[in-house]
Amino acid sequence: MTESSNSPGRIYTAALIVIGDEILSGRTHDKNIAQIASWLGVQGIRLKEVRVIGDETAAIVEAVNTLRARSDYLFTTGGIGPTHDDITVDAIAEALGVGVEVHPVARKILEDYYETRGGINEARLRMARVPAGAELIPNRYSGAPGIRIGNVFLMAGVPQITAGMLDALSGTLEGGALLLSETVGCWVPESEVAELLADTEKAHASCQIGSYPFWKDGHNGANFVIRSVDAEELAACSRALADALDSMGKPAVAGGI
Amino acid sequence: MTESSNSPGRIYTAALIVIGDEILSGRTHDKNIAQIASWLGVQGIRLKEVRVIGDETAAIVEAVNTLRARSDYLFTTGGIGPTHDDITVDAIAEALGVGVEVHPVARKILEDYYETRGGINEARLRMARVPAGAELIPNRYSGAPGIRIGNVFLMAGVPQITAGMLDALSGTLEGGALLLSETVGCWVPESEVAELLADTEKAHASCQIGSYPFWKDGHNGANFVIRSVDAEELAACSRALADALDSMGKPAVAGGI
Repeated sequence: MTESSNSPGRIYTAALIVIGDEILSGRTHDKNIAQIASWLGVQGIRLKEVRVIGDETAAIVEAVNTLRARSDYLFTTGGIGPTHDDITVDAIAEALGVGVEVHPVARKILEDYYETRGGINEARLRMARVPAGAELIPNRYSGAPGIRIGNVFLMAGVPQITAGMLDALSGTLEGGALLLSETVGCWVPESEVAELLADTEKAHASCQIGSYPFWKDGHNGANFVIRSVDAEELAACSRALADALDSMGKPAVAGGI
Repeated sequence: MTESSNSPGRIYTAALIVIGDEILSGRTHDKNIAQIASWLGVQGIRLKEVRVIGDETAAIVEAVNTLRARSDYLFTTGGIGPTHDDITVDAIAEALGVGVEVHPVARKILEDYYETRGGINEARLRMARVPAGAELIPNRYSGAPGIRIGNVFLMAGVPQITAGMLDALSGTLEGGALLLSETVGCWVPESEVAELLADTEKAHASCQIGSYPFWKDGHNGANFVIRSVDAEELAACSRALADALDSMGKPAVAGGI
């Protein structure tokens, strides 16, 4: 994204709907939440909510209509393949109150892609169906494109394919000021420094401090992540926290542990 | 869970709220969704929806009140530690319209746990606070217990701690018939067998078939997961699918690839 297309004064938000029985059964470990969250951060867009729902039309319609209204951008993953359990396109068309049509460019992409892979068939052509009025998002991995309609972006369930679609979208969405972060690690139980964290956050109005404890090699530690849109305040807050930890005899580790 | 405590005729459902800015920023890859989903399956309870939200009271209150009403059980992860960003107990008390109190048993557990670890302090005592009327869920890893109030279960954000809390809960929740599954793998693009999958599912009324494609070693393959509460129909459906794949010259791999 070029800097000039960002609007630092406004916060842009996104929501994500992960669609798939395989996530809810525990069979598949989702990788799209973290991948899309990180990508959005780089675009200057904040992920505000994720919902994971099953392959059910009513659940998809409800989630889509709630979240597209309250976020600048709504992403979905899953359910845009060729099989009977791929119902995302139809459900989103229903949510938007539009029909489903075959996109001529998507049809051509699929015909070309499958020319040397056994030929096109009815199931493969399902992947050319889009909510009426939609645009395509290129997919350089497997032919079938992603879909954009209004502020809704339909991505694949397979993380590698979604990665390619995100790459194609990079820099095309309007975003706001980047949320910057610095991490300060420390070999200290977070419960020993809880008051320090709260006081340090209060003293730096634009900053939030998250505390993420861990146990490693038999010791308590924590990473403190400071977030702000203001680079100077971020640096001042991180320095204040690190200095305070050092002066307690608990050396701060810049960048985290 | 003993078999006698299950009610095979009824479907029990659960929802999960993952609370934490660190998941929405992409910094932390969630492991609790898959862990809790799998554990629920073993209890005969189906996970129907997951929401990931930030450390914001209003977002927690809304999600808790929506999901506890439409599910038999509601789980939350995250935000029950000792620091200022741990607001789950207060937010859930607000959602339920009850106060927050110090649980005397939790207080005792924490005092004992920290006796040899620097002593109790105000931050650590925060972890003894519960919505009024709540029970404790034992945590054998780090002292601070999980919390149960009504059909709402507050678990830790750290996956190993949540694992211990789930273990303590195993067999204590009423569940329904187990959703059984079998996986049939095949080195075939799912788009070549989409019609077969739909027809096979239709012919076995109690079964759902999910299709999960992958690319491995330069080849297209897919795992087909058949799910049913009826063991006989599940076996018949899996066999029918495997036979059909074999007769197409695409050998089925029992158990998946």
